Amino acid sequence: MLYLGIDLGGSHIGCGVVDAQGTILSNADARTQPERPYQEVIRDMAACAMQALTLGGYAPKDIATIGIGIPGIADNETGMVIFCTNLGWTNVPLRDELQKYLNRPVYIENDATVAGFAESVAGVSKNCVSSVFLTLGTGVGGGIVLNGRPWTGAHGVATEIGHITMEIDGIPCTCGKDGCLERYCSATAIIRMAREMCLAHPDCAIAQTVKGDLDNITAKTVIDLARGGDDIAIHLFHRYCRYLAIGINTIISFLDPEMVVLGGGVSHAGAFLLDTVRAKIPSLLMFKTMPYADIRLAELGNDAGIIGSAMLARISFEGGQFARAD
Amino acid sequence: MLYLGIDLGGSHIGCGVVDAQGTILSNADARTQPERPYQEVIRDMAACAMQALTLGGYAPKDIATIGIGIPGIADNETGMVIFCTNLGWTNVPLRDELQKYLNRPVYIENDATVAGFAESVAGVSKNCVSSVFLTLGTGVGGGIVLNGRPWTGAHGVATEIGHITMEIDGIPCTCGKDGCLERYCSATAIIRMAREMCLAHPDCAIAQTVKGDLDNITAKTVIDLARGGDDIAIHLFHRYCRYLAIGINTIISFLDPEMVVLGGGVSHAGAFLLDTVRAKIPSLLMFKTMPYADIRLAELGNDAGIIGSAMLARISFEGGQFARAD
Repeated sequence: MLYLGIDLGGSHIGCGVVDAQGTILSNADARTQPERPYQEVIRDMAACAMQALTLGGYAPKDIATIGIGIPGIADNETGMVIFCTNLGWTNVPLRDELQKYLNRPVYIENDATVAGFAESVAGVSKNCVSSVFLTLGTGVGGGIVLNGRPWTGAHGVATEIGHITMEIDGIPCTCGKDGCLERYCSATAIIRMAREMCLAHPDCAIAQTVKGDLDNITAKTVIDLARGGDDIAIHLFHRYCRYLAIGINTIISFLDPEMVVLGGGVSHAGAFLLDTVRAKIPSLLMFKTMPYADIRLAELGNDAGIIGSAMLARISFEGGQFARAD
Repeated sequence: MLYLGIDLGGSHIGCGVVDAQGTILSNADARTQPERPYQEVIRDMAACAMQALTLGGYAPKDIATIGIGIPGIADNETGMVIFCTNLGWTNVPLRDELQKYLNRPVYIENDATVAGFAESVAGVSKNCVSSVFLTLGTGVGGGIVLNGRPWTGAHGVATEIGHITMEIDGIPCTCGKDGCLERYCSATAIIRMAREMCLAHPDCAIAQTVKGDLDNITAKTVIDLARGGDDIAIHLFHRYCRYLAIGINTIISFLDPEMVVLGGGVSHAGAFLLDTVRAKIPSLLMFKTMPYADIRLAELGNDAGIIGSAMLARISFEGGQFARAD
């Protein structure tokens, strides 16, 4: 049996036909253009899905279920997207609208949960009984897999790990609170720290790299300079890695998963990031002689959204209960 | 079938015969005197257990399994207590030593996990699929119940919620880190804040209540004065409740349990605490229109240790796998 995974992002839509092992057999993509009415976006999602089917020589009847990963939260009883901030969606009937074009069962889930689940089915955390996935991007998203199944909470609002408080009265967050983890552990946090540094040291290598236009600083600017040996960039990079290590230690102290998986843009720094973060964990541990979570980089990259949403749709309909592993 | 629960604390040992519903049928207690060799402490545990059996008219053969709650962590494969700080125990063969006197299967678990599980079997979180328990005492302990079973992590070191970081470079913690949650949310935190306030305002009602001897300040001193309307005590109490609300919101954002249960000494403040904390949660929520965890007071008090350890021993032997709810 085959499954259709749809990765709905703020700029792109990815669709793929996926087998039961999590292998993408055919895929297509389209632009989201979220400024349009949601009906048009969903119509294009359906067209993109049909294209993925056609490219692989499949028909809608070959698909058991459709999974959709969204940058927000959904209610699968109603098939509604409740919030999806960067699409500007509130209470959008995504399932009903999509089924006008593709009449198969639809399961909708948060994209970080989707990506974490994909890694646990076909990526780095395959065979892990428990894992926590972090996307280190503009914000920080989280996905929890327990007993091989995603944990999305009693009310569907779990794994907002980017919004646990890491500093009382800390840096104001876009969510309205202060001191959220994503203000310290996202790519945005690296950029903020780099801008502050450039204002204090206008001649530093970071400022020179962007020719003084601080709006052009990216996380990669800082990481590349740190890798190249620039002292200020190294200082910033270690500060970021320390914050990330503190965040990971909070995950260990709370849930003690078998593995913590790092994905998202910052994770492209690869072993340079991983080795630095790993080195900062031991001194933070509560029980210093006990084993603890393996910390690893995500493996599936952009495919995680298609694979994870397809595999979630699969278990949500095959397994009866979805998020509760009884 | 009956079960024996043993609550091993720093000052007292409680033993009880418990039925399958979590009702204590007979019980006894003894002093721990942890300064003695562990062999003597465990000999007295066995004697106390025999006393509980005898008082109820039971014999060791009536007991299916023995559960022991300890203020530390254990390895149930070896039956060893790995750490138990306030008993001064490291690598103590608790199971083997106890079985010299009472040759029944033994299961050992952290006391906060035990108390949280007790509440989920016979207390306030009965029938909850998921709950997180917090003991608000000298420190802050945590217990997680998912799918009706305790979650103790992939390496047995989960639920150290008192040691998640709430403030980067915050108040130094006894664990060696800085800014741990228990430095802001324990009874000890209330006492610290009250002492600081008394040093700044030597004539305040708190200082007067303890006749200037700041070593005599307890959490109850502050809470009673706040309840009575003293401005400074109210200020401190609200500050504490805000910290606790931030901590609870971190639990909600991370795991989204059905219920958060507050136990331990500070929870004796009852509705005064609960109402104040509950009022501070809504503004912290990520999804302000979504339902979230019910926040409740623990119901079982000191019985939780005996009930929870007996019920944990029961499921650990009946259910095959213990902490993983497959």
